[in-house]
Amino acid sequence: MLEELFQQPCAWLQPGADTGTVVSSRIRLARNLKDAAFPGWAGEEECERIWQKLRPVLSELKSLEPSFSVGMAEVEEFDRLILFERHLISGEMTQRGRGSGLVAGRDETISAMVNEEDHLRLQCMSSGLTLQNIWKRMDALDSEIEARVRYAFSPRLGYLTACPTNVGTGLRASVMLHLPGLALMNELNPVAKGLTKIGLAVRGLWGEGTEAAGNMFQISNQITLGDREENIVRNIEQIVLEVVEHEKNARARLLEKRELVLRDHVGRAWGILSHAHLLSSKEALDLLSGLRLGIDLRILSGVDRQAVDRLLLLSQPAHLQRREGKMLKPKDRDRVRAELIRTQLAGLRGSS
Amino acid sequence: MLEELFQQPCAWLQPGADTGTVVSSRIRLARNLKDAAFPGWAGEEECERIWQKLRPVLSELKSLEPSFSVGMAEVEEFDRLILFERHLISGEMTQRGRGSGLVAGRDETISAMVNEEDHLRLQCMSSGLTLQNIWKRMDALDSEIEARVRYAFSPRLGYLTACPTNVGTGLRASVMLHLPGLALMNELNPVAKGLTKIGLAVRGLWGEGTEAAGNMFQISNQITLGDREENIVRNIEQIVLEVVEHEKNARARLLEKRELVLRDHVGRAWGILSHAHLLSSKEALDLLSGLRLGIDLRILSGVDRQAVDRLLLLSQPAHLQRREGKMLKPKDRDRVRAELIRTQLAGLRGSS
Repeated sequence: MLEELFQQPCAWLQPGADTGTVVSSRIRLARNLKDAAFPGWAGEEECERIWQKLRPVLSELKSLEPSFSVGMAEVEEFDRLILFERHLISGEMTQRGRGSGLVAGRDETISAMVNEEDHLRLQCMSSGLTLQNIWKRMDALDSEIEARVRYAFSPRLGYLTACPTNVGTGLRASVMLHLPGLALMNELNPVAKGLTKIGLAVRGLWGEGTEAAGNMFQISNQITLGDREENIVRNIEQIVLEVVEHEKNARARLLEKRELVLRDHVGRAWGILSHAHLLSSKEALDLLSGLRLGIDLRILSGVDRQAVDRLLLLSQPAHLQRREGKMLKPKDRDRVRAELIRTQLAGLRGSS
Repeated sequence: MLEELFQQPCAWLQPGADTGTVVSSRIRLARNLKDAAFPGWAGEEECERIWQKLRPVLSELKSLEPSFSVGMAEVEEFDRLILFERHLISGEMTQRGRGSGLVAGRDETISAMVNEEDHLRLQCMSSGLTLQNIWKRMDALDSEIEARVRYAFSPRLGYLTACPTNVGTGLRASVMLHLPGLALMNELNPVAKGLTKIGLAVRGLWGEGTEAAGNMFQISNQITLGDREENIVRNIEQIVLEVVEHEKNARARLLEKRELVLRDHVGRAWGILSHAHLLSSKEALDLLSGLRLGIDLRILSGVDRQAVDRLLLLSQPAHLQRREGKMLKPKDRDRVRAELIRTQLAGLRGSS
């Protein structure tokens, strides 16, 4: 099943939406069962009992159809890392085994992790800025489940969660933004500070604790309590549109005042990616970010953003290893990564 | 005259010799006139008198035929810098004006600076390792001059010079070496230390006080006293051959043990030079050094070393300015340099 799944571009790379600055949108809900200990307190047997109970329930939901499910104990480490790189499971989940699992729609846009930090972590994501849409899908999934199991819920606090920061709506809405303009103009810090001040978190590409690489940033709400879900979502969408304006503005100023620096940045990215024989994951992301910017600003022709976005995914460690059919040492990954990118770019016609 | 001169590749770029590791050889002699103050002590008038006396004498020498001569006061700063980049005058000489000048053969391989630190600084250079040959030419020039003017000479010390470090033979023999193999293997320091221990100086591309860029190093004798000229020259040539062996050995080990690092190094150099829009002088030298190595080791095809060596010269600040017909700010030079290299490399077919 996974084999088949990994052949397709993942949810946040699906074409269609305008993905220039807003790469993808994601909403997750934290939910727990009434009268069961949170996964961190429950033993392995209790967790396994919950997973075995939820797996068939989730697998038959209309919202997830057609679905697939995998227990973490059934998935090799190898493939767990791929699920992580596709944003289907969290970093924490890659360390889990028996008693936890994933049920997801086959298009990877909607999914439920069982027994990560909470009994249920529901997720809906898609490319582009689509928070309000995916909230509706999420809401439907949540209702379907609530009709079948009893959630831990307090009339005063709302949904109860393992970590107090999620209590209330249990909702986290996040948007992945590509902000090379602000980065090149050295204006990321004030923007990030402003976002933090109004209660939003700014994180790197793979969420909490990950470094910002490739000028990709996740913006998400910190507060989950005291407001309706629709308002939280609408509020973030509003703020994201403002950040997009900032980025647009930074790009315009780059083109106007520092065109040469910009062309140099994009040209070097193309030159190195097309000719290097060793590329670390971080460097590849940073340089692919340069190509992405060049494409958006039309100073790099003959390359489409989708091809670059595919490389963003395929050049990640687990995807590379899957491609080679074996675990690779970091040095070997750097070689294989450079080879993959060099070959793919040679197939395109780029000029800068 | 200078205009015409600058059209030709300069002495240290002349093809023919094997210039892979030994780029060029150079010998200079310091000589002073009897009964005249050293240039640093003589006033401008005294210097001018000496220049006016020596200019016609030098211009008629068989060794310099066909020759040209320029007084530093007649040469714009612009062109003085070009003479410097072609190694025809020293950095110190670019600051001089009335009372000093240059008489040189039109092929630029043999020349005499008048009133730099000494009354006469004679120089002979050519591409490849040719110290013994150029010493013969130099000796002939020296004899021709000595037949016409009286040198300051002490039977005990030998030729007298403004700086005591040159007293005796007044000879400095130097060889420009391209040592990217030792640099990439991190073995430059022990080699340089060894050379210093046996009385040789190791310097950057443009001599004393200049930084090593492009992995180009000048090796020269420090001691000018107490040995015959032929011995000094033969001794250096011997040592250079040993350094060449070290470099050859380092390159072989690179190819054997770190081929990927090597291919990456050369590939990136090609990629950046072919696509950058801003290149500093230092970066250009370093990257062109990478191409040079790739050509020598046959991992870069379709590009010849001579084309790269021409770029080494043409991408220098003064040559760039001459090309543009005006003085340029550093930022503009970086743009023009990148443009020149990008265009020239696009004309070649390189693969890595």
